[in-house]
Amino acid sequence: MLVARVIVDVMLKPEILDPQGRAVQGALGRLGLSGVTDVRQGKQFVIDIDGELDDARRAKLEQLASELLSNPVIEDYRMTVVNDDEAGA
Amino acid sequence: MLVARVIVDVMLKPEILDPQGRAVQGALGRLGLSGVTDVRQGKQFVIDIDGELDDARRAKLEQLASELLSNPVIEDYRMTVVNDDEAGA
Repeated sequence: MLVARVIVDVMLKPEILDPQGRAVQGALGRLGLSGVTDVRQGKQFVIDIDGELDDARRAKLEQLASELLSNPVIEDYRMTVVNDDEAGA
Repeated sequence: MLVARVIVDVMLKPEILDPQGRAVQGALGRLGLSGVTDVRQGKQFVIDIDGELDDARRAKLEQLASELLSNPVIEDYRMTVVNDDEAGA
């Protein structure tokens, strides 16, 4: 059975300050990793969908990714479709 | 100048319940996307590193990804290295 897996990465826009990322950057340095110039922390959604991901559902998903999964005022999202017959494995 | 970009994806282990993902799954259905069988929500860290990512720094990063960026009791991580001369662009 066809199962589509869609990955939505949500990241703060480059011009928005990322205090979490900044904290991680400091921690990485203190714990011995030198030369870290920037860290950004985002969210990742892994969405499994039953059946075929036709154009209508893809458009709906695109809309929901921009309005539900991300905040378009401060975040960018990137949607990647992984069509995989064995995604349920 | 060489800049390495490392992406660390952190996701709850498959056997751990993901209430956030479950909530997103419900919302996607209510908002008109049918056939969503599973949603998992994870974190993504985008780490820019100055200079070459040699074996020692890569090992250090691997250690920090498993101990600082993720909780090995309940989370898996995946590290992807994107060597990119123009990552700063």
